[in-house]
Amino acid sequence: MGVGDVSKRILLGRKLRSSQLGETLLSKRIALPVFASDALSSVAYAPDEVFIMLSIAGVSAYAFSWKIGIAVAVVMLTVVASYRQNVHAYPSGGGDYEVATVNLGRKAGLTVGSALLVDYVLTVAVSVSSGVQNISSALSFMQGHETEYAVGLVVVLAAMNLRGVRESGAFFAVPTYGFMLGVLGMAAYGAIRAFTGDLPQAESADLRLAPDPSYAGNLSQIALIVLLARAFSSGCAALTGVEAISNGVPAFRKPKSKNAASTLLLLGAIAITMLLSMIILAREMGLKYVDPADIERLTRADGSALPAGYDQPTVIAQVSKAIFDGFPPGFYFLVAMTGIILILAANTAFNGFPVLGSILARDGFMPRALASRGDRLAYSNGILILAGFAVVLIVAFQAEPTRLIQLYIVGVFVSFNLSQLGMIRHWTRHLKTEKDASERRRMVRSRVINTFGLAMTSVVFVIILVTKFLAGAWIAILAMVAFFILMTRIRGHYDKVSEELVAGDEDQLLPTRVHALVLVSKLHKPTMRALAFAKATRPNVLEGIFVDTDPETTDALLKEWDKRNLDVPLKVLYSPYREIIRPIVMYATSIRESNPRGVVAVYIPEYVVGHWWEQLLHNQTALRLKGRLLFSPGVMVISVPYQLRSSEAALERRVDELERVRAGDVRRGRTRRR
Amino acid sequence: MGVGDVSKRILLGRKLRSSQLGETLLSKRIALPVFASDALSSVAYAPDEVFIMLSIAGVSAYAFSWKIGIAVAVVMLTVVASYRQNVHAYPSGGGDYEVATVNLGRKAGLTVGSALLVDYVLTVAVSVSSGVQNISSALSFMQGHETEYAVGLVVVLAAMNLRGVRESGAFFAVPTYGFMLGVLGMAAYGAIRAFTGDLPQAESADLRLAPDPSYAGNLSQIALIVLLARAFSSGCAALTGVEAISNGVPAFRKPKSKNAASTLLLLGAIAITMLLSMIILAREMGLKYVDPADIERLTRADGSALPAGYDQPTVIAQVSKAIFDGFPPGFYFLVAMTGIILILAANTAFNGFPVLGSILARDGFMPRALASRGDRLAYSNGILILAGFAVVLIVAFQAEPTRLIQLYIVGVFVSFNLSQLGMIRHWTRHLKTEKDASERRRMVRSRVINTFGLAMTSVVFVIILVTKFLAGAWIAILAMVAFFILMTRIRGHYDKVSEELVAGDEDQLLPTRVHALVLVSKLHKPTMRALAFAKATRPNVLEGIFVDTDPETTDALLKEWDKRNLDVPLKVLYSPYREIIRPIVMYATSIRESNPRGVVAVYIPEYVVGHWWEQLLHNQTALRLKGRLLFSPGVMVISVPYQLRSSEAALERRVDELERVRAGDVRRGRTRRR
Repeated sequence: MGVGDVSKRILLGRKLRSSQLGETLLSKRIALPVFASDALSSVAYAPDEVFIMLSIAGVSAYAFSWKIGIAVAVVMLTVVASYRQNVHAYPSGGGDYEVATVNLGRKAGLTVGSALLVDYVLTVAVSVSSGVQNISSALSFMQGHETEYAVGLVVVLAAMNLRGVRESGAFFAVPTYGFMLGVLGMAAYGAIRAFTGDLPQAESADLRLAPDPSYAGNLSQIALIVLLARAFSSGCAALTGVEAISNGVPAFRKPKSKNAASTLLLLGAIAITMLLSMIILAREMGLKYVDPADIERLTRADGSALPAGYDQPTVIAQVSKAIFDGFPPGFYFLVAMTGIILILAANTAFNGFPVLGSILARDGFMPRALASRGDRLAYSNGILILAGFAVVLIVAFQAEPTRLIQLYIVGVFVSFNLSQLGMIRHWTRHLKTEKDASERRRMVRSRVINTFGLAMTSVVFVIILVTKFLAGAWIAILAMVAFFILMTRIRGHYDKVSEELVAGDEDQLLPTRVHALVLVSKLHKPTMRALAFAKATRPNVLEGIFVDTDPETTDALLKEWDKRNLDVPLKVLYSPYREIIRPIVMYATSIRESNPRGVVAVYIPEYVVGHWWEQLLHNQTALRLKGRLLFSPGVMVISVPYQLRSSEAALERRVDELERVRAGDVRRGRTRRR
Repeated sequence: MGVGDVSKRILLGRKLRSSQLGETLLSKRIALPVFASDALSSVAYAPDEVFIMLSIAGVSAYAFSWKIGIAVAVVMLTVVASYRQNVHAYPSGGGDYEVATVNLGRKAGLTVGSALLVDYVLTVAVSVSSGVQNISSALSFMQGHETEYAVGLVVVLAAMNLRGVRESGAFFAVPTYGFMLGVLGMAAYGAIRAFTGDLPQAESADLRLAPDPSYAGNLSQIALIVLLARAFSSGCAALTGVEAISNGVPAFRKPKSKNAASTLLLLGAIAITMLLSMIILAREMGLKYVDPADIERLTRADGSALPAGYDQPTVIAQVSKAIFDGFPPGFYFLVAMTGIILILAANTAFNGFPVLGSILARDGFMPRALASRGDRLAYSNGILILAGFAVVLIVAFQAEPTRLIQLYIVGVFVSFNLSQLGMIRHWTRHLKTEKDASERRRMVRSRVINTFGLAMTSVVFVIILVTKFLAGAWIAILAMVAFFILMTRIRGHYDKVSEELVAGDEDQLLPTRVHALVLVSKLHKPTMRALAFAKATRPNVLEGIFVDTDPETTDALLKEWDKRNLDVPLKVLYSPYREIIRPIVMYATSIRESNPRGVVAVYIPEYVVGHWWEQLLHNQTALRLKGRLLFSPGVMVISVPYQLRSSEAALERRVDELERVRAGDVRRGRTRRR
């Protein structure tokens, strides 16, 4: 295949493929599952956390469980109402980061950015851990090895995302609708059995639950309030993921904001229904659930200890197993869907994290090269960093969702709060200029909603902070501070550089002359091409330069040079110690010294090869020479590539690379590229 | 500090330093220690190996020890006599590799090259292990942790060499003359004590030595011969390092060859004296020495076992401790000198290995970039590879010299043999043309010496191969074969490429026009400089190109472009997916397509920065763009550097780097660079 063919194929291939690129916008029917996995999956672990917290005061405290469920539902509805305002006001998909930055300034935006980065890491850790915990309720061979399986899953997810996941509507729709169907079906069936007086008991109903020693006996009013606050803040884990839609408005069909807002409302309603049904059913069925670390508080009815290594099935597993006692496939279906939707939630973090990174990079808070969204480098690095942090957390907390959740929601509420505060500012600012009365009324109403939302979320934030700080939230806060400082430093560096680089009028002065040097090692095709290219630019002076490390080679080259009638003088540089780089740099520098207004152009013939090991065998000296010449002012370095035959394979690989599908494309409204 | 200052400082600084570069040739007095550490240090372990082998047949076999010493001495003298011929015939310092390549062809040369590479690795492993073993004879806290100390020492040596060792004559002279003084002084003092009937017993003299079960009872003639052959081939370890001088002839004062030859003779004489005195003294003093793996064959006189963890002191330690029984400083001095000279021997491998690599690279058997001798990359990689292999061997053989020596000498004798064979060919060839009678006589005599040398070394080689193959020599041979294949492949690749690149007449055709594109991201100083440089080359067409990822930024840039009156059109490329690289590559390719005889010159402004983390923050897109553009035929890439202030620090570091002293400079006759 000739060189012309290759380049034509690239061009045509490209053109075809480009025309296939395009947007497919999401209908509400598809948008719901695409954005719901995050928010709904948290229903799988939130009830467990509520029961664990209440169990501290013994089984009597379970009477409060549905009240806590209601409280969480109220907060959820408030947050949903608030975010419906965001979706209308910021349809560009920037989410909380954009809202905070625009309305509250750079620091607030960066705080939200840091909180979200930490949040993505925790989403992966918590979702995968909870997924493994649920699946192990059905597959008993996994019990006791949760950490290993969770780490393995993170690695698989990272590998899949590095490789490129082919997402589609169905990819999200099947498990999400499956999960909804499973949970709501179970709730309905459970309700029927309850009405007919046929509601079975959960497998832990016969167990005896001892309160935590410090909570034994009659509880003081304050101790009870503290306990309920802790249970409530754990239950708020159900709120994570609600904000996802506000990042995805551009992917909706028109009217985008309206469709996004109604999807959000629907999502909130479903999540609340699921959460409440789970809590009420579990309570009615006599379920007992304690922190796995305190498993000894759970004993047989006769007071004897449970067998060593006893693993509590999750709330969802216990409830569904009992309700579907005459229909095991129902249980297995629900456990499978729970596991899958949790892993799907982790997967969405894998595409959210690099996207957030690219937005932060565009604003100069991350290396600027990460700013182009479709970029593979940004993607790969983001995926690896996310997976690395998640694995560290999973190992440190032994894949126990209960312990990881202590770190989780503080970040979510940081962004909830700043986002609401930003929205209030937004409406206030717009109200200053808006004249139209009905428009003003709508804005005032929105501001009221956001104000109420802020009041609610800030109270919850304080509760979370107080109840979870020592239990682990401090780690998340520390990580946010670290991200914040790092990103501030990066931005500071860019600002400093950009100040240094402001162009003045003197920068428009033209160099007076160009002195071109063509690096010669042998007289082969690459050198000939470099000479031809250099000649074509018609410099004021053109010389070949050759470093003499061995007299025989030099003589042979000089003879061939003459024979070929190249019409270019060849300068031989003497190098007693066989150094190549130093004599060339010195020569180029000295030319520039003697003519400070001129430019030295160094032409370096480069081999373009197809394999990494060929790269080791070629171009190394050229590369280092270039690295060194860049430090000399007034010298420019021209790489004249010569494509070896083996480079064709590499070119194919690179073209494929550019065409590859990336995770999260669906959420951003992109179709497949082939 | 302005840009002019920096460049002036570089230039002046350079000039000064260059004038200080120079050669100091070695007097014989200094040359002896510089080249002796390798050869003499092997005297520290060769006697141990002889006694270990003989011990298999029980203490009675020790009667053969001095005969074996004599046999080794004879071989040593033969080898010395042969290499004196090499030194005269090949004064350029190419050593065995050159002799074999010139006279026997590429494959023989490559075989020698492979053998020497393996040899360097083993020199490090054996010398360091033996050094640690000797030092631990004096410092008992090291006993039982030899492997850790040996690995630590290799790491320290590697780090020192990476950092740059400041060698000097004294660096070699003090320990080498110290070691010679110590051993010969001990021998003299021992001889006096023997004459006065006052020779003390070695500490192991009272122990009982049981023969190996398979050798118990009366030995058959054949078994005895095999045993003696094994002892002899182990003793031949004393020969390693003798060839070092033949690589260093250029570093001698004139008459170089003559001085080198007499130094070689002197070295051989000293080594033989030391070896024989050690063996005879040890024998006379009743020393018993067994393979550490068979330590249970050594028992107390009453037949009871030695305490667990008993560590035999080395032969040199036992002998010196006894002889200097009234003068402990003598013992400590000798043990210290032994340890140091062994480590010095390992250190010389650290500079020999990269030098050999550079020679092999010059001939296309290693990546060509490694060919420049003074080069840091070649050095660092060589040092790391050598240290890595040595550590693997030390760990695998638990730093036991006895086991490592089984691998060692086979490689040495491969190069001895090929070198002698090459020398015979050399003389035969020269005799064909030489007319002068006295010159002919000298050549014939040299050929006789080399022929005798070959006969001797080939017999020894066969003995070594037979006695050591299964004991470990197969590993060394396998490694040689691997190096040989790898290097053949590399050379094959270079040959193929070089064939592909032979220039024809059509390569002299000039491109008809130059279409220049200047990559614009912002209108700052780097861009202005790139534009100015591009303009200075007066291309047929000149355009700025900008990738539009955000309409606002594009508008702002277009306005500023107009305002500045740049006199260059700005082409805006549309990129719906915020990709940067693809649109540029497509545009450049399409220009070239429409004008296949033209050249596209892409000017990329590059930031030159001072720290690696700044590199992460800048230039990443430019780098990848360049990597991709290189695959497009007819496109050349011009880096226009802009030096940020922070780059000055990096420049200083790089200049320092170039000036750094390298290990082995003394052996190559170079003075310090500052």
